[in-house]
Amino acid sequence: MKKMLIASTSTIFGSAYLEYILTDLALFFKGVDEILFIPYARPGGISHEDYTKIADSAFRKIGISVKGIHEFGDPIKAVQSSKAIFTGGGNTFVLVNALHQNRLMPVIKKAVESDTLYLGTSAGSNITGVNMKTTNDMPIVYPPSFETLGLIPFNLNPHYLDPDPNSKHKGETRETRIKEFLTFNNIPVLGLREGSWLEVNGENISLKGKLTARLFLKNEIAKELTPGILKI
Amino acid sequence: MKKMLIASTSTIFGSAYLEYILTDLALFFKGVDEILFIPYARPGGISHEDYTKIADSAFRKIGISVKGIHEFGDPIKAVQSSKAIFTGGGNTFVLVNALHQNRLMPVIKKAVESDTLYLGTSAGSNITGVNMKTTNDMPIVYPPSFETLGLIPFNLNPHYLDPDPNSKHKGETRETRIKEFLTFNNIPVLGLREGSWLEVNGENISLKGKLTARLFLKNEIAKELTPGILKI
Repeated sequence: MKKMLIASTSTIFGSAYLEYILTDLALFFKGVDEILFIPYARPGGISHEDYTKIADSAFRKIGISVKGIHEFGDPIKAVQSSKAIFTGGGNTFVLVNALHQNRLMPVIKKAVESDTLYLGTSAGSNITGVNMKTTNDMPIVYPPSFETLGLIPFNLNPHYLDPDPNSKHKGETRETRIKEFLTFNNIPVLGLREGSWLEVNGENISLKGKLTARLFLKNEIAKELTPGILKI
Repeated sequence: MKKMLIASTSTIFGSAYLEYILTDLALFFKGVDEILFIPYARPGGISHEDYTKIADSAFRKIGISVKGIHEFGDPIKAVQSSKAIFTGGGNTFVLVNALHQNRLMPVIKKAVESDTLYLGTSAGSNITGVNMKTTNDMPIVYPPSFETLGLIPFNLNPHYLDPDPNSKHKGETRETRIKEFLTFNNIPVLGLREGSWLEVNGENISLKGKLTARLFLKNEIAKELTPGILKI
């Protein structure tokens, strides 16, 4: 049965990496000693080694060690033999490019559908959706496809940000961008605010954290969903 | 000789469409009766017809009529027979996708290099750079390539926005995103603030408007450039 935690962000304001969600992670990963970390999204261009160290430091606090997928000779076998996977945030284009180049997209999908635990934050959450077309990231590399894992039946917009009514900036708001997406695509989009995450148990998807999430459907007015089991 | 105006935005806060730059447009397009408008970026999913009407309304104020490229049977011939082109803003992915699908990228490049006047705003400015990898837009469609016109020897980031020191949001700042781009690419990036534009005369490129622009180079600290002829 699919078991996933899909978080808007790894870090909330004024708090350390993964700190706000650490108690939930301890519960979710109960019985797991080692997690396979996918550092491909490389936030700020950080190396795979350095990024893995950051993830490892956080998980050590709950007695779990972290091994980066780049440490394995065969990344496909690394996924297939792991009990738990964590894909960190960073740039979604860089992440999706690396996953396609290493032919990992179907491998991760199959593993998660066959009981491998999955944690994603930010870009690592984006890829659990149908495609990456609602990412906030800059297209700094050209991936062979925008298709992603499709482990949930909608798209995510992590770090969802409400429009600032006082802004004098004329760039598009997040809501405008997502509505633009819906003029060209018919896939629901869930705007997940920082501090919110989804917990997936088989076909049940629950919104966790204290905040509401914003759901966008084609030709409908956006609506706020409260924490609890989602019907999307 | 290349003659281009490349604007960060079509509209600044508290002002009508193109209003802030209209006097300069009248001078730039002196002697031109009709402009070919490329509405492919479709801001907010607007139709080509409606977008062309918006552009036409603005240009009528300076005695110029606007015809949309979609009104022509052959868009390639439409570009080749125009004295002046204006590509409006919207979604850069949608725009670049349409330009590649209609095989217009090399046609526009050649026309502008052969004295066709070019005006771009926002997404229409983005495409004058080497590629579209520094756009702010959401990747709502998958274009066959991120390569663009390469009419200027660097990339642009329109609607450039300085980091908000009071923000509690953990999404990347614009500067962080551009630095990420530079870890994977070695192309200068000019952050062009709203109200700024570039004037290109052959190989001379000048920054116009009252604001400075922010230049990002690989492995260098970003610097502010003042209005006047640029050396990039």
